[in-house]
Amino acid sequence: MTEKKRIYKPTPISGFPEWLPEERLVEQKWFDHIRRVFESYGFCSIETPSVEALDAITAKGEVDKEIYVIDRLHKEEGDKEARLALHFDQTVPMARYVAQHFSDLVFPFKRYQMQRVWRGERPQMGRMREFYQCDIDVIHVDNLPISFDAEVAAVMYEVLEGLNIGRVQLRISNRKLISSILDVYIGGSIIDFAQRKTAALNTIDKIEKIGESEVSRKLVDECGFQADMVSRLLEIIRIKFRNADQLNRLFDITSQKLAVNSTFMEGFSELKTVMEGLSHLPEDAVVADLSIVRGLDYYTGTVYETQLLDVPEFTGSVCSGGRYDDLAGSFINKHLPGVGISIGFSRLFDVMRQSRPDLLGIGPKSPAHIMMVLPSEDKRALAHDTARTLRNRGYNVEVYHAPQKIGKQMEYASKKLIPYVWFPPFEDGKPHEVKNMTTGEQSTADPDNWSI
Amino acid sequence: MTEKKRIYKPTPISGFPEWLPEERLVEQKWFDHIRRVFESYGFCSIETPSVEALDAITAKGEVDKEIYVIDRLHKEEGDKEARLALHFDQTVPMARYVAQHFSDLVFPFKRYQMQRVWRGERPQMGRMREFYQCDIDVIHVDNLPISFDAEVAAVMYEVLEGLNIGRVQLRISNRKLISSILDVYIGGSIIDFAQRKTAALNTIDKIEKIGESEVSRKLVDECGFQADMVSRLLEIIRIKFRNADQLNRLFDITSQKLAVNSTFMEGFSELKTVMEGLSHLPEDAVVADLSIVRGLDYYTGTVYETQLLDVPEFTGSVCSGGRYDDLAGSFINKHLPGVGISIGFSRLFDVMRQSRPDLLGIGPKSPAHIMMVLPSEDKRALAHDTARTLRNRGYNVEVYHAPQKIGKQMEYASKKLIPYVWFPPFEDGKPHEVKNMTTGEQSTADPDNWSI
Repeated sequence: MTEKKRIYKPTPISGFPEWLPEERLVEQKWFDHIRRVFESYGFCSIETPSVEALDAITAKGEVDKEIYVIDRLHKEEGDKEARLALHFDQTVPMARYVAQHFSDLVFPFKRYQMQRVWRGERPQMGRMREFYQCDIDVIHVDNLPISFDAEVAAVMYEVLEGLNIGRVQLRISNRKLISSILDVYIGGSIIDFAQRKTAALNTIDKIEKIGESEVSRKLVDECGFQADMVSRLLEIIRIKFRNADQLNRLFDITSQKLAVNSTFMEGFSELKTVMEGLSHLPEDAVVADLSIVRGLDYYTGTVYETQLLDVPEFTGSVCSGGRYDDLAGSFINKHLPGVGISIGFSRLFDVMRQSRPDLLGIGPKSPAHIMMVLPSEDKRALAHDTARTLRNRGYNVEVYHAPQKIGKQMEYASKKLIPYVWFPPFEDGKPHEVKNMTTGEQSTADPDNWSI
Repeated sequence: MTEKKRIYKPTPISGFPEWLPEERLVEQKWFDHIRRVFESYGFCSIETPSVEALDAITAKGEVDKEIYVIDRLHKEEGDKEARLALHFDQTVPMARYVAQHFSDLVFPFKRYQMQRVWRGERPQMGRMREFYQCDIDVIHVDNLPISFDAEVAAVMYEVLEGLNIGRVQLRISNRKLISSILDVYIGGSIIDFAQRKTAALNTIDKIEKIGESEVSRKLVDECGFQADMVSRLLEIIRIKFRNADQLNRLFDITSQKLAVNSTFMEGFSELKTVMEGLSHLPEDAVVADLSIVRGLDYYTGTVYETQLLDVPEFTGSVCSGGRYDDLAGSFINKHLPGVGISIGFSRLFDVMRQSRPDLLGIGPKSPAHIMMVLPSEDKRALAHDTARTLRNRGYNVEVYHAPQKIGKQMEYASKKLIPYVWFPPFEDGKPHEVKNMTTGEQSTADPDNWSI
């Protein structure tokens, strides 16, 4: 039939996932839900270009993420253009956006952003090189009330709780707590202070992965802390405080075991306010957990991680973030503190898709609620009219394209898992009928009044 | 206050547009509307990665669009990776997708796709280098019923009609018509046949831009047609047929003035069927117009363009497409005919944004329906509880962040154009009140029953 021709057989590109229509339908539902929750708290959407000037991306210094740069395939010699790079997160673009449009924005600026980001991972690492992130942040000028630290956490809990991914637990801390304790006990010369502190924070950050005893060993051997102090510190880190009342014990326990300073007091008071602001959430939804430090230097107060309690296939934190003191200092001479959380959307979706397709409800290959049977060529106008009536009433209706045998038409609806099949009258004067494809029930129906 | 530091002052990157929150809110409404119409006809969404293998993009031959390739910034010597390029349209990715997932798809495959595409235009051209396209296509194996040529046009008319961009006119033709006439009359040696035919089609394609007399001159001087035949052809091209009935005249007029062959008959019959399938649309919504040929060789039957009748600032066609005989022949050994239309979303939005902000309804800077006043610190829990009640009832509610003077809180709502301000009781036992910011009216309200 078709003549022989050169064929390029396409294969998936490692790290750039794509979904089948039935998976995409669920992905869209997730996006819709996330957006609805974000907007219900008054967060506005922004979208930035996929690229930033490379100079903007590296304005804060070298980036440890692998960056993709773009270039015209047929660039001519001597074409002078600024180098452009695909953004590797949504924070740098937001900072640049806020600086660039500063005078057009109203503060506190509450924005959400759900875009793809790119990381130039080696393909063999099995990591995604293109994926969606869903971020919310609140930015203010000079001072940002601590109440927002509770609000962004409440928003993300509501988001995750509605995705049908089992029980979710937000783990919250305040970097001032651990940081201030380390400051008091750090040993060795003043020269290594910052370096050893960073090493200690990074070590504690890995506690879930490497275990308590390894953390303890490293804090003593590599960061120069006294074994006795480390064991008291780990006692405190071990406790999960389930609400603001329980959290009062943190201060008592810590001040019994270790010396605390005014920074600790500040962090404690902030964390307590945040926990109080989340007291409307269910038991176990939120815990204060001092082992949460987040690797990045960037964060200066509240820090968040989130665990899926029922999906062991998902390792690490599904949704993380924190408070930062200076968003856009490299772009504008303003002091802009902020707080934000980000969901690593695509990895979460991919893990759930592979390990829990049942929970996701992957099935229908079409958004159609109804497939309209085409009885015969001369009933085509009637079929389309009926479809239009139902569409105007909010239903998605696909009209079958050819007056084929009814069995064949029904088979198409079955294959796409379209839930209802509509039969316009095959003869004048007869009523419309509709078949529920799940129950098999078939009954007469009026297109102007029928409802699912 | 802030110390001096090196600042990178960000500037817009030519060709990569971004919008302010109030503009983005309207852009989102547009996307929502378009998606709703697409889905109401049973089109399913797919999304492909931003990149394709460069070999896939060029599988059909050299591409005349400027392509962006991507590269890791710190690629190491000897890293062997397939070259990847950002897609310049959504047709090549769809063809690759259909070929790659052929056995997982149900045909006829009706898909929509609303993604960014990239063109490596020189910045000085003022063209967009990153923009959204919104495409629908129907693909079938071996034979695709002509009824889909009417359906995709009906869908796009409904999409555009709902965007509030004034009157829209679909202009439809069938390439078999003009093509068959040219075949009969083409002069000169057989060697130049294809070349002269392409030149003639491209000339006719430019009739709106260069005018009839220039088209006439070129057809005679450059393509070798007889002046007399050209003047008869232009007489026919000049006529706009407003419906299937009028279209019957096309055959009469043409067969009086020019020789017609069986390909003409075929094209005529297809065009008539398409016009009949669109007879439910308003007068003037659709015209058959033989001057529409679309530049691309790609199309083999029905072709579409769309004019905005009330927005002279928008030049050219806002939404174009056609039928093609072979979608994915370079990727799979199957015969896959299709028909599709595409909206150049971002240019349309940008033109309307700049020239008709009134029509677009650009205003609110937030999706919030209600701003909740925070009367005092000890009413914070009450304010948040009330907000939650209203959110559960479907409203977007932003709680003001600090118990500042009421005037200051109201000013924030005004600046963001949030339509309602809610006052929780300042004293126990008093009722809630809500103020309509448009009318200035203020009245008592019950969060469990209030509605806009």
